[in-house]
Amino acid sequence: MIDRSDIESALTRLKQAPVGFLRQTPLWRLPGAALGVAAAEVWLKLEHLQVGGSFKARGMMNRLLAQPLTQAGVIVASGGNAGIATAAAARALGVRCEVFVPEVSPEAKRKKLRELGADVVVTGAVYAEAYQACLARQQATGALLTHAYDQPEVVAGAGTLGAEIEAQAGVPDSVLVSVGGGGLIGGLAAWFEQRSQVVALEPETAPTLFRAREAGEPVDVAVSGIAADSLGAKRIGDIAWAVTQAQVRQALLLSDESIARARHTLWSEFKLAVEPAAALGLAALQSGAYRPRADEKVCLIVCGANFDPSALA
Amino acid sequence: MIDRSDIESALTRLKQAPVGFLRQTPLWRLPGAALGVAAAEVWLKLEHLQVGGSFKARGMMNRLLAQPLTQAGVIVASGGNAGIATAAAARALGVRCEVFVPEVSPEAKRKKLRELGADVVVTGAVYAEAYQACLARQQATGALLTHAYDQPEVVAGAGTLGAEIEAQAGVPDSVLVSVGGGGLIGGLAAWFEQRSQVVALEPETAPTLFRAREAGEPVDVAVSGIAADSLGAKRIGDIAWAVTQAQVRQALLLSDESIARARHTLWSEFKLAVEPAAALGLAALQSGAYRPRADEKVCLIVCGANFDPSALA
Ligand SMILES: Cc1ncc(COP(=O)(O)O)c(C=O)c1O
Ligand SMILES: Cc1ncc(COP(=O)(O)O)c(C=O)c1O
Repeated sequence: MIDRSDIESALTRLKQAPVGFLRQTPLWRLPGAALGVAAAEVWLKLEHLQVGGSFKARGMMNRLLAQPLTQAGVIVASGGNAGIATAAAARALGVRCEVFVPEVSPEAKRKKLRELGADVVVTGAVYAEAYQACLARQQATGALLTHAYDQPEVVAGAGTLGAEIEAQAGVPDSVLVSVGGGGLIGGLAAWFEQRSQVVALEPETAPTLFRAREAGEPVDVAVSGIAADSLGAKRIGDIAWAVTQAQVRQALLLSDESIARARHTLWSEFKLAVEPAAALGLAALQSGAYRPRADEKVCLIVCGANFDPSALA
Repeated sequence: MIDRSDIESALTRLKQAPVGFLRQTPLWRLPGAALGVAAAEVWLKLEHLQVGGSFKARGMMNRLLAQPLTQAGVIVASGGNAGIATAAAARALGVRCEVFVPEVSPEAKRKKLRELGADVVVTGAVYAEAYQACLARQQATGALLTHAYDQPEVVAGAGTLGAEIEAQAGVPDSVLVSVGGGGLIGGLAAWFEQRSQVVALEPETAPTLFRAREAGEPVDVAVSGIAADSLGAKRIGDIAWAVTQAQVRQALLLSDESIARARHTLWSEFKLAVEPAAALGLAALQSGAYRPRADEKVCLIVCGANFDPSALA
């Protein structure tokens, strides 16, 4: 479990990151009408413009600054974006980095990892298998392990996104958040607590939190579909589970088609080139899965853009 | 010639545009270090997120609101973005629209025009030829002509971008602006006057303003190269000529290679998917063609994103 004080600590610690590493990303406030949505305002938090192309850099830099770093460097297993963020943070701090990725991860992400100076190990059909191999290797080398979503510093780092939104525009009525292993929603829900309604969004094809809520505890689920490379964690993280049980009242499932449609709208109407995982918020509004009040200020977390842009053509 | 008062009028008039049509686009302030640039701050004005994917919607909506509209509707000749903006404005106001485009314009732009309900006429190898055909047609129909860059309302509309930047963050020390026919720089230089240093940027392959300044008057130039579909006006507009002679001290040329490199950086490092015309500001900084002072706040106008995204892959 983490709470606001962990996020306050992260905010302080991240001031020590190299200048220009973490970016304050734009918060774009639009009238609901601009998106054809019956809400007063839609806020698009353009966090896909963060270093490494996703929100993950916040958590990874927070973890690397919080723990002692040795010659053995850093090690991570990741569907892609957590690996990219770890590699970018390690490079910025001048330590080596090894990244384990499953076979489902796109070539664009692997290439990016190599450009960031990381050693890339491709192993396992899904994230969980890459993770096991990574743990074994960590035992051998003693490198600092970063977890894609289930470490307190990682979740608290993600929570700094909530603090940034609040500093930019105040507290929105609701925050729509894509969920994989739950680090992002864990951080945001810990920041906003009950001051805003934080809503969990998942593809029907990767219902990690949704199934856990049905079962009353974290359970393994089968994952596939449009956003599996980013939202394809098999089981919700323990930290996210604890935070969301306390703070999150709604978890919604979205069809892959609605996600694809929203992503297309983001490009063709708004010129935001994003990966599928970043389109769930708009998909929830467009499909009616989430219905805001007429006077509501809804914040969508546009969380990632690591993908092959020819997919938009 | 236009001046600040024309832009003030445009700001007032544009309040009558349909709700959500024009967007206040994000101004992204980064430390120079984040871009590897030796300047205190780089401001990226993300105007490619404007309705229609470029700044042009401001000027076109301003013109349509300023003039009487009849059943004959609106007509324009455009390399693409001015046509898209005119079509979008016409649709928002419920009038018909005819767009003349030269053969050099990319299919992505024509498709977009059709989606916006415009009648598209493809004619002429370059912009100037499409323009002649458009004028003849306008004589026949009596439709309201919008010019891509050389009408007072169009330039003043572009100038509202300067007012918006100032409202968001104050007056930057310098503003780096891509130039085609000069509507954009005309508006920005009329707004900032001598309060900021407005710098004109052109591809070596489309040096419309640069050659005019050499000649001491607007002259026709040959245009080609990486940004010809947006910056390929053959001759600088009269309004832009008058404003820039009064307000702009520097006009710089950039190689197509430096523009391509900057555009690649904007995507790979900043996840901004933009067309070449929008990358000249960063190209000027990366290539050293423009050298800011160490304490300078430099504003780059990221002006358009109508292109086939597979070009980024
Ligand atoms: C772009 C993007 N969005 C959302 C998520 C989900 O984050 P989390 O696993 O913390 O729930 C991820 C995870 O990799 C991601 O890469
Ligand atoms: C994206 C983009 N940038 C810059 C320009 C140049 O504008 P102007 O012709 O007003 O100089 C254009 C013109 O079409 C454009 O489309």
